Amino acid sequence: MDFTFLGTSAGTPTRSRNVSGLALSRSGHKPWYLVDCGEGTQHQLLRVHYSVMQLRAIFITHIHGDHTFGLPGLLTSASMLGRTEPLDIITPAQVERFINAVLENSDSSLSYPLNFIDSEAPDFHWQDEHLGVTNVALSHRVPCRAYVFTERNLERQLLVDKLREDGINAGPGWGELQKGHDVTLADGRVLRSEDYTHIPRVARRLIVAGDNDDPGLLADACTGSHVLVHEATYTQEVADRVGPWPQHSSAQQVARFAQQVHLPNLVLTHFSSRYQSRPEGTPNINQLAAEAMQHYQGQLFLARDFDSYRLEKDLSLSRILAD
Amino acid sequence: MDFTFLGTSAGTPTRSRNVSGLALSRSGHKPWYLVDCGEGTQHQLLRVHYSVMQLRAIFITHIHGDHTFGLPGLLTSASMLGRTEPLDIITPAQVERFINAVLENSDSSLSYPLNFIDSEAPDFHWQDEHLGVTNVALSHRVPCRAYVFTERNLERQLLVDKLREDGINAGPGWGELQKGHDVTLADGRVLRSEDYTHIPRVARRLIVAGDNDDPGLLADACTGSHVLVHEATYTQEVADRVGPWPQHSSAQQVARFAQQVHLPNLVLTHFSSRYQSRPEGTPNINQLAAEAMQHYQGQLFLARDFDSYRLEKDLSLSRILAD
Repeated sequence: MDFTFLGTSAGTPTRSRNVSGLALSRSGHKPWYLVDCGEGTQHQLLRVHYSVMQLRAIFITHIHGDHTFGLPGLLTSASMLGRTEPLDIITPAQVERFINAVLENSDSSLSYPLNFIDSEAPDFHWQDEHLGVTNVALSHRVPCRAYVFTERNLERQLLVDKLREDGINAGPGWGELQKGHDVTLADGRVLRSEDYTHIPRVARRLIVAGDNDDPGLLADACTGSHVLVHEATYTQEVADRVGPWPQHSSAQQVARFAQQVHLPNLVLTHFSSRYQSRPEGTPNINQLAAEAMQHYQGQLFLARDFDSYRLEKDLSLSRILAD
Repeated sequence: MDFTFLGTSAGTPTRSRNVSGLALSRSGHKPWYLVDCGEGTQHQLLRVHYSVMQLRAIFITHIHGDHTFGLPGLLTSASMLGRTEPLDIITPAQVERFINAVLENSDSSLSYPLNFIDSEAPDFHWQDEHLGVTNVALSHRVPCRAYVFTERNLERQLLVDKLREDGINAGPGWGELQKGHDVTLADGRVLRSEDYTHIPRVARRLIVAGDNDDPGLLADACTGSHVLVHEATYTQEVADRVGPWPQHSSAQQVARFAQQVHLPNLVLTHFSSRYQSRPEGTPNINQLAAEAMQHYQGQLFLARDFDSYRLEKDLSLSRILAD
């Protein structure tokens, strides 16, 4: 599983960080998935290897503009490129309303169907052949969700000894069993794939959370998850000064939570634009890193635009730096 | 008068050209004015010296997304920065509808008043102390306008000999006359500013046109104008192949028109994303320039993002290249 940050700034863009957007794929394979779509997401996509033509679904965490205002441009650009494949948008219903109003009042029509799916529905679940997706309600100024992405249809290994013991000879049936399909033999015997194959590893699981002032809400979801991408808008000192109203998390708060639930990999993002990325800038993004490291012993990353991450089958996470 | 291109690509952004946006000011003075606001305009502003805090008015030529989808982000970012000054948006009414729908459905509110002014109203006219603005109906798939910006309140020179002849001694009254104010003397005489001052130069006038397949509509407005900024989406060959439906101009078409009306300065923009800016790219932006030069003997420029232009008081136009 690969993911690339298209934006890592909270509220407004800076010269080096766009507002929220994250591209997710199966290690270079198509299709891919987008989580949030701040203004300029289509511009960021011009600099990475993800094309809107292969985009399968967009997951919106919540309705705020820094997570949604890139939708009209991205959707109409896909249309200008001639997209015909349907596109799923998993989102609070209000986003559907504003997209429809924008399309109707800008002489825009799309060359492909949009399927709006309510992210706030009880028991939300989405899947395609590659991924199963659930979500978790967070605590923010508006309804907001974390999306939990779990691999589906993992590769199976044949239990060759068992097949031979049962007198089942190598042939096309073996291939079907390995693909997960049950097979009926000429003599009428039915072979169940799950009896003759096994899955040699754990399904990878990644959580991408929206804005949230209560990381503890993710405790259950983090069990069995390998990476959490979570906002850390401020250091604790700034969070205390700003007060509770914006309903964001501090680096300390997220780090403490991740430590409590023994999360192996934590990627922080959605930094207030006050934090500068240049080493000499003040206040500095490194303050957020230093604060988080004090409270978390797992593998910690601070996201930057265009950095990509790969969650390997062995569940290790590595970062591929942007050029 | 200075203007800076924030976007010069038609329809969709490219890696080197954003969609439409142009910043206009009085040679470095505040306030400034924005013509069109494609997605990412607020991002482009992070790289120039124009701040949304000093923006006086936005002029929208027409409702298409590549001219309007940056509005929600720009307006809400100005609010996050704490703007309180009212902002005028001169636009077709449909844009007001979609902006209101976006604000209502993204939990956004603005810290300052928006004044929507209908750009399609008969006898449209807008002014502040620095600029008078009229517009001209163009020919496009939707109602579209060119905006004509004319300097106001030009500096006056005192007719010192005449003042002395009439026995009016130097004093604060001279300053008032020079500012354009009439003055009442102690003896009851009223001195009219226009009788004792003159304006030593012509008011500068710039036309910024929206999308348009009939440059001839600008013939009257071009009389007495010093610069025309006009789209040239294609070369004539591509325009012929594409057919009339998109209702854009070719470089040849605009150049022929500019030559006919003896326009001194023509700046072409809004290039189809098929034209590449790298010298070795094909098809190339230089083809548009070559085509226009064949038909126009005035001063010709092809706009690039972040290039600035200065229209001097002597009516000469010069380009200040982006870094």
